[in-house]
Amino acid sequence: MELTTNEKQIIENSIRDIKDFPKEGIVFKDITTLLNNKEAYATLMNHLHSRYKDYNLDYIAGIDARGFIFGAALAQMLGIGFVPIRKKGKLPYTTIGEKYALEYGIDEIEVHLDAFSGVNNARVLLIDDLIATGGTANAAATLINQTGAKCIEACFILGLTFLDGIKTLKEKTDVYTVLEVD
Amino acid sequence: MELTTNEKQIIENSIRDIKDFPKEGIVFKDITTLLNNKEAYATLMNHLHSRYKDYNLDYIAGIDARGFIFGAALAQMLGIGFVPIRKKGKLPYTTIGEKYALEYGIDEIEVHLDAFSGVNNARVLLIDDLIATGGTANAAATLINQTGAKCIEACFILGLTFLDGIKTLKEKTDVYTVLEVD
Repeated sequence: MELTTNEKQIIENSIRDIKDFPKEGIVFKDITTLLNNKEAYATLMNHLHSRYKDYNLDYIAGIDARGFIFGAALAQMLGIGFVPIRKKGKLPYTTIGEKYALEYGIDEIEVHLDAFSGVNNARVLLIDDLIATGGTANAAATLINQTGAKCIEACFILGLTFLDGIKTLKEKTDVYTVLEVD
Repeated sequence: MELTTNEKQIIENSIRDIKDFPKEGIVFKDITTLLNNKEAYATLMNHLHSRYKDYNLDYIAGIDARGFIFGAALAQMLGIGFVPIRKKGKLPYTTIGEKYALEYGIDEIEVHLDAFSGVNNARVLLIDDLIATGGTANAAATLINQTGAKCIEACFILGLTFLDGIKTLKEKTDVYTVLEVD
């Protein structure tokens, strides 16, 4: 299920480039202008629904915090459960965590150990707004698989193809990007 | 549109109490067990959709980060736009901010100044998972109104009725809580 040229344009045109955020030299892809544009938001979500409706998914897992937006909406459309993967210390029950490298230093994300336990060998779609170096997504896919569930695919609204994130993540799971940024 | 007794029980039973999180003496309401329970999640979202489908809303605004989950899913169901209200420093474009008191110290949330500008005098529903003292929700409603939009109602999955948050917020906007905790 591919985006039509028209759908692609609607989504692409709704994303705003912000120069020098969060620091000089970076062009930040602002997806808030996609979300508050009802035509673009509906076009994107209907596309994701069409793509995933026959994947027999049991859960969507979304990465803190923009992954919550697309992930929770898609889980609702598919009639399945949503699982938040959060920054360390935010989840209240028993968690497992995975560290990943940042440009300077390391960070850690966590998931509830029993998050996917409602279904045996649960099939999970991982979702986030953007993949760059893929550090967070790789850690998230690792966590999902460590719970006994299986990360079937990782889905991103935007993929930065000039970095190696997508290539590295593909060693662990299938990867789908709605739009690619060269 | 009220919840039936059965729907209420499905949702209530899906929420997990965590003692002493984030600190001793607090019973934390864990809504991740609502989200990953497909029956409970669908029941809740269908209820919110029934309640709000005739409100002529233009946008849903969700508070960082759990408000993103319910807000984005509801915006998708209603075919309208979603606006994130975020912790200071997270939004990349021109923002307005509002400070609010915490138990110790102050915090600040922000919204993009043009977030609701796609519709004149936009009608906005504010959503978050829980209202306690209401500091964040009050600041969020103030921000929405400052942009020129109107906060029509604030909706919470859980309302802690032993605190004054709901009463105070009602001076500014209508308030709806799906479940109340005494």
